Amino acid sequence: MADKKNLAIIGFGGMGRYHSIMVKNSDVVTLLGTYDIDPERMALAREDGVPTYESLEALLNDPKVDLVTIAIPNDQHKDMTIAALEAGKNVICEKPVALNSGELEEMIAASKRTGKLFTVHQNRRWDPDKLAVEALCRSGEIGRVVSIESRVHGANGIPGDWRKVKAKGGGMVLDWGVHLIDQAIMINRDVPIESVYARLDYLYGGEVDDGCHIVLRFENGLVYTVEVGTCNYVILPRFYVRGTDGTAMIDDWDCPLRVTAKVKARDKDATPIQAGTGVTKTMAPRPEDTIRTYETPLPASDVHDFYRNVCAAIDGREEQLITHDQLRRVMKVMETAFESAEKDEVIKRII
Amino acid sequence: MADKKNLAIIGFGGMGRYHSIMVKNSDVVTLLGTYDIDPERMALAREDGVPTYESLEALLNDPKVDLVTIAIPNDQHKDMTIAALEAGKNVICEKPVALNSGELEEMIAASKRTGKLFTVHQNRRWDPDKLAVEALCRSGEIGRVVSIESRVHGANGIPGDWRKVKAKGGGMVLDWGVHLIDQAIMINRDVPIESVYARLDYLYGGEVDDGCHIVLRFENGLVYTVEVGTCNYVILPRFYVRGTDGTAMIDDWDCPLRVTAKVKARDKDATPIQAGTGVTKTMAPRPEDTIRTYETPLPASDVHDFYRNVCAAIDGREEQLITHDQLRRVMKVMETAFESAEKDEVIKRII
Repeated sequence: MADKKNLAIIGFGGMGRYHSIMVKNSDVVTLLGTYDIDPERMALAREDGVPTYESLEALLNDPKVDLVTIAIPNDQHKDMTIAALEAGKNVICEKPVALNSGELEEMIAASKRTGKLFTVHQNRRWDPDKLAVEALCRSGEIGRVVSIESRVHGANGIPGDWRKVKAKGGGMVLDWGVHLIDQAIMINRDVPIESVYARLDYLYGGEVDDGCHIVLRFENGLVYTVEVGTCNYVILPRFYVRGTDGTAMIDDWDCPLRVTAKVKARDKDATPIQAGTGVTKTMAPRPEDTIRTYETPLPASDVHDFYRNVCAAIDGREEQLITHDQLRRVMKVMETAFESAEKDEVIKRII
Repeated sequence: MADKKNLAIIGFGGMGRYHSIMVKNSDVVTLLGTYDIDPERMALAREDGVPTYESLEALLNDPKVDLVTIAIPNDQHKDMTIAALEAGKNVICEKPVALNSGELEEMIAASKRTGKLFTVHQNRRWDPDKLAVEALCRSGEIGRVVSIESRVHGANGIPGDWRKVKAKGGGMVLDWGVHLIDQAIMINRDVPIESVYARLDYLYGGEVDDGCHIVLRFENGLVYTVEVGTCNYVILPRFYVRGTDGTAMIDDWDCPLRVTAKVKARDKDATPIQAGTGVTKTMAPRPEDTIRTYETPLPASDVHDFYRNVCAAIDGREEQLITHDQLRRVMKVMETAFESAEKDEVIKRII
């Protein structure tokens, strides 16, 4: 085992503090301290037992710091990342990595120029629900997977801070969409996207989108829908996956994967059911003996694998898992979604 | 009360037979008989106690017949409707009324020329779930309604007959889409549609669509999604309705309307919850005291109101409820949906 890397956290807001708690149990990083421009957050850090630097410069100039995690508003990611790389630090940036592809390219160039690692905290690649869907797709147990619907629903609007401000990179596409799009790209690894269709919500009257519905059409025919809602008082399932031979659903974060799959063909037409004011054979339930329903617990996952990989990549022992090309694709999808929603058009673009 | 009208049914397949059963209890029509080209279906009619005509001509030439219901494959609707109108009969045609707008215009012209009533059996306007959603939208109890998702899901594929054949007007857009689109248009009465986006399924390898996802954007901002699935082994709710102040859901045909609505603003930010490998305030549940959840039984409805209106319209006592302009709009939406899906484009067209 290599020595632990020394980490500092830039920004001690909600996420910065969360990182400080997460890394307490890390086997690969040691938290040296944090810096935040807000004295109250610095006081909170000290109460938490997290050492504080007296300035950003002091943090960046500390030769003991190998690695920084940047958890500040989105519009400051680019400049802070470049400053940290140029100070000789390896950088984990919070998501969304930047406001647009242009900024991202500047950050990648700085990483290449300085020879320091630059990656993004896409922790939701390790979400158990996403891992379950990924495994389901590879298993073939519901046949060829033809559509995946990935939803996160709340009814709180956007929590009240810079996330409501457009110039700071607010809005739900950048905040939650970024995770769900990254998951879509990882579940369909190496398959290009050929078109993007998106609608955005502006239900609370703010300047940023407070919800989104984004449809990615992959070249293999799979249609992947990403939906984020902040005005959904009743939630729809977290995942809904259709295959040619079955359907799978995950109701909520901690729920098992529920699968109903075909076990044999129907031997006769369905018996019509009364449905509303009419009858229907098409929408009648399948006979019980032609299907099988079962539940699978979500797989175990360890989000510390993220920090383990970052440290191994710094030492050249592993490739970094969250690559610059993946970051580029996610950013391009978000930009294309904004364009689609603004124009009310399907944007055909290979991503 | 006017005298009962004498009805004959052309076509004694699944739907023709269903109509014969339905009208047994009618207070406005008397079933005189039926004709079907298939001798086995004619024998079944007689077993049911339904008189049979020895030929189509015999049926159309029977001066006692005031009204015919046409329940034959979709590609024959136009010619049969025109023949019946020209024989001096009033006509109820099964849905979808025709294969395209051109056919529909010929049928409407024949109705005008002969002075006979021509309408379509859009029975699902009386579906209790649709009526509940319509009332919810007007009530304002979940604020301004911003999106309605209307789904019917099955896993039987397309029942095995002409409904699988393109030339006969098969496929799910024409079979089930037509109902759900008609409902959308009725719920948003007098509001023009400004764009249509659609995807079609071809999951069973047939020549017609075996499912569809159609998004109608109305001029007042409401987004209405119609989804028909025949490869959905687990179903999503029949209706999901979002308003600015609440969400409503109807799980299945006979389920009540479940509403969760805001009763007061949040007084502080949500408490973060653990969700997958991260924490989230945005997707945390709202505090119980800021919302109210309740169920409303679906309203009573009487599909016989359809025949009552037809008979009153024949006598000039009422306007026909299912108008030619509404039929035109539904047809135009279906045609636009086919175009959208084929091109993978949002079609901007005022409908």
